[in-house]
Amino acid sequence: MDLNELKEIPLLRALSDEQLEILQGNAQKRDYKKNKRIFEPDSKDNFIMIVLEGKVRIYLAYPDGKEFTISFLEQGDIYSSHSKTFAEAREATKILAINAQAFHLFMLNNPTILISMVKALGDSLGNTLRIIENLAFLDIDKRLARFLLDAAKEKGVVGQEGTFINLGLSVEDLALAVGSSRQTASMLLNRWERDGVIRRNRKTVFLLDMLKLQELGGRID
Amino acid sequence: MDLNELKEIPLLRALSDEQLEILQGNAQKRDYKKNKRIFEPDSKDNFIMIVLEGKVRIYLAYPDGKEFTISFLEQGDIYSSHSKTFAEAREATKILAINAQAFHLFMLNNPTILISMVKALGDSLGNTLRIIENLAFLDIDKRLARFLLDAAKEKGVVGQEGTFINLGLSVEDLALAVGSSRQTASMLLNRWERDGVIRRNRKTVFLLDMLKLQELGGRID
Repeated sequence: MDLNELKEIPLLRALSDEQLEILQGNAQKRDYKKNKRIFEPDSKDNFIMIVLEGKVRIYLAYPDGKEFTISFLEQGDIYSSHSKTFAEAREATKILAINAQAFHLFMLNNPTILISMVKALGDSLGNTLRIIENLAFLDIDKRLARFLLDAAKEKGVVGQEGTFINLGLSVEDLALAVGSSRQTASMLLNRWERDGVIRRNRKTVFLLDMLKLQELGGRID
Repeated sequence: MDLNELKEIPLLRALSDEQLEILQGNAQKRDYKKNKRIFEPDSKDNFIMIVLEGKVRIYLAYPDGKEFTISFLEQGDIYSSHSKTFAEAREATKILAINAQAFHLFMLNNPTILISMVKALGDSLGNTLRIIENLAFLDIDKRLARFLLDAAKEKGVVGQEGTFINLGLSVEDLALAVGSSRQTASMLLNRWERDGVIRRNRKTVFLLDMLKLQELGGRID
């Protein structure tokens, strides 16, 4: 990976050419096909991942085969392979893998990177707290409604007909994200479509009746 | 709070006298009686809390009154009031409250504090991931067994009779920590006591049969 490519990564913009050269020696560009595993817990290959392209699913898995999605990472997102979580490419994905030890030394000399790490970790923590809130307090239908409302807040486009969200997630992804089976998620989405609350396409969704969806989510905000 | 007291806080040990004086101007020692609220989400009083003495419960609460405990903080632990969580003194507690804005400026100039923050956030994230794993994959009895096993790993003392844990938690605390009702937690603990798996006292517990408890927790490690 050449220096110019490294410079284009927002997180690394503050680094000098000299620093980038050192980083270059400890970083590797990696390509993953859709559904390929990127790392798993307790792996010996300990690295910091920056997503360059594509979509990465971060999830927990249980020996009986059950899975629970924690988050989806996109371009520019950063994550550590030293985690209880698994990561897989949800579509064709390119990442930058930086040797963890080298990265830690780097952090020490670059407060801007450290601050980015604090921010990324803080965001992850906020996300996991929201998941716990949902799991501890809410049934599946409420979780799914809230997931759509949160997605609308994050990347919805409000139009005449309703709020359009380019989710980029299949029904299976949605189910994994709220901790339900594909069948249950599909059943709920079909019911809401029939009731005129949403309209779905392959990986996009229109929220037609926000008030109703907020009611389904048990929340007014 | 005088400089010598500030110097005794491990997190602040790396700071110079001059830095500590600046911090002093932005920090306040606060006392809380048992069960008193320390902060709640969306509070305007935005501060970094360092626990000086006592025990703080960090929890989520739902409008219907349900609560879910995320963690218990003890001496030396650090947490930000800018969070989705509530905090309350679980016993008589002293904290140092540092103005958040001042603390952020401080972090910029003190990589050692930043690194402590990264570590604290990383630990919190690991903790919330474990909670999600438990909530998503396990029933209450498994969660409670695992909670005791984790506590044993963290602060158990192995003796002839079994592993002794000075939990410092009431049955109600235990229930809140695993997301069950007090009744359910109490029923499970009584059953395990009857079966010779544990023996309880007010806020301590003996794990008499670790193998059985690991079996109850669905885990061998």
